[in-house]
Amino acid sequence: MKVAVVLSGCGVFDGAEIHESVLTMLALVRAGAEPEFLAPDIPQAHVVNHLTGQVAAGENRNVLVESARIARGKIKDIARANPEDYAAVFFPGGFGAAKNLSDFASKGADCQIQPDVLRFAKAIADAGKPACYICIAPAMLPFVYGRGVAVTIGTDTDTAAAVTAMGGQHINCPVKEFVVDTERKVVSTPAYMLAENIAEAATGIEAAVKATLALI
Amino acid sequence: MKVAVVLSGCGVFDGAEIHESVLTMLALVRAGAEPEFLAPDIPQAHVVNHLTGQVAAGENRNVLVESARIARGKIKDIARANPEDYAAVFFPGGFGAAKNLSDFASKGADCQIQPDVLRFAKAIADAGKPACYICIAPAMLPFVYGRGVAVTIGTDTDTAAAVTAMGGQHINCPVKEFVVDTERKVVSTPAYMLAENIAEAATGIEAAVKATLALI
Repeated sequence: MKVAVVLSGCGVFDGAEIHESVLTMLALVRAGAEPEFLAPDIPQAHVVNHLTGQVAAGENRNVLVESARIARGKIKDIARANPEDYAAVFFPGGFGAAKNLSDFASKGADCQIQPDVLRFAKAIADAGKPACYICIAPAMLPFVYGRGVAVTIGTDTDTAAAVTAMGGQHINCPVKEFVVDTERKVVSTPAYMLAENIAEAATGIEAAVKATLALI
Repeated sequence: MKVAVVLSGCGVFDGAEIHESVLTMLALVRAGAEPEFLAPDIPQAHVVNHLTGQVAAGENRNVLVESARIARGKIKDIARANPEDYAAVFFPGGFGAAKNLSDFASKGADCQIQPDVLRFAKAIADAGKPACYICIAPAMLPFVYGRGVAVTIGTDTDTAAAVTAMGGQHINCPVKEFVVDTERKVVSTPAYMLAENIAEAATGIEAAVKATLALI
């Protein structure tokens, strides 16, 4: 059972959240699924020095190339991936979901989703296949599924307000749990939007992954 | 119970193996330990494009800065860390252990260990505190503990021969198990030297982490 995991770089401040990506892969493999990594072949919005938290001026990195670090080299350009090959899709979080896969971090409710990513996510949705959005990635859900989609980004008031402004139906959710939109087959969980340590993030992600696979 | 996890960058081909680093952290937190990340503040030996596997000519990255991606920014220069603050030390693998923490990848049995890393590792050893070396990191063990230290890097004949030439006592070990040198309180496990997927690596690392904590 092949499933897609869409990465957005490598590092919480400018790419995919590394723990969430690895924990998603671990939960999938332990459940008997075969994760394949995808990412867009585009420049990162910027590069952040993760030691200082400051933008590294003048540095440029590519989302697909950096995502390949988490994937140990086994990754494909999402523009060349066929959604029909996958039974479900998983989006780990990290600022890359809001800076590279979309521009939610800078534009808020006026954001757009990167075209190759949107095409893939919409194809999964249109085919009635399940999807799992983690951490900040659920901010993309109203654009993929339209108004009324049930979604959680945890309990952050400002982010929840932006998701609501885009047409999402935000539901507060604790870190070890998840929200399911059963009609649209969409699962979301807060992970590091709320997690105070990696074990908390792992519990929520494991539960969300199992719930998503059960919808296939 | 504070323990140190020493990283060597961020990515299997030029830094710390990301899955092994995250799985080590997860196992430690689930066991009730408090992992703190350390890394040397030195340039990486080189940068590898993880999509192509080729060296990225002209690119330079710093081991501490890139390691901070795995650590979500919470990491310390190992040269400024006090070994007395930690009950044990853990070294995940990845080529960074053989390219940045040591030059084993290029020099084999004639390799040396980065001075700040060697000072820290030896201080833990001299204090009789336990240590856990994962994947290729056990190649450093003969330099830290001297001749006769029991160690595994899995079943790779060439690597095992180099470890033996340095004075290590190499023991073949399957991926889900580990080797303990009880006299020196050193645990090693093959992880991605043998693992065919992340679940196999996780099983071996969880077992090795528990065995190491039990030696405290």
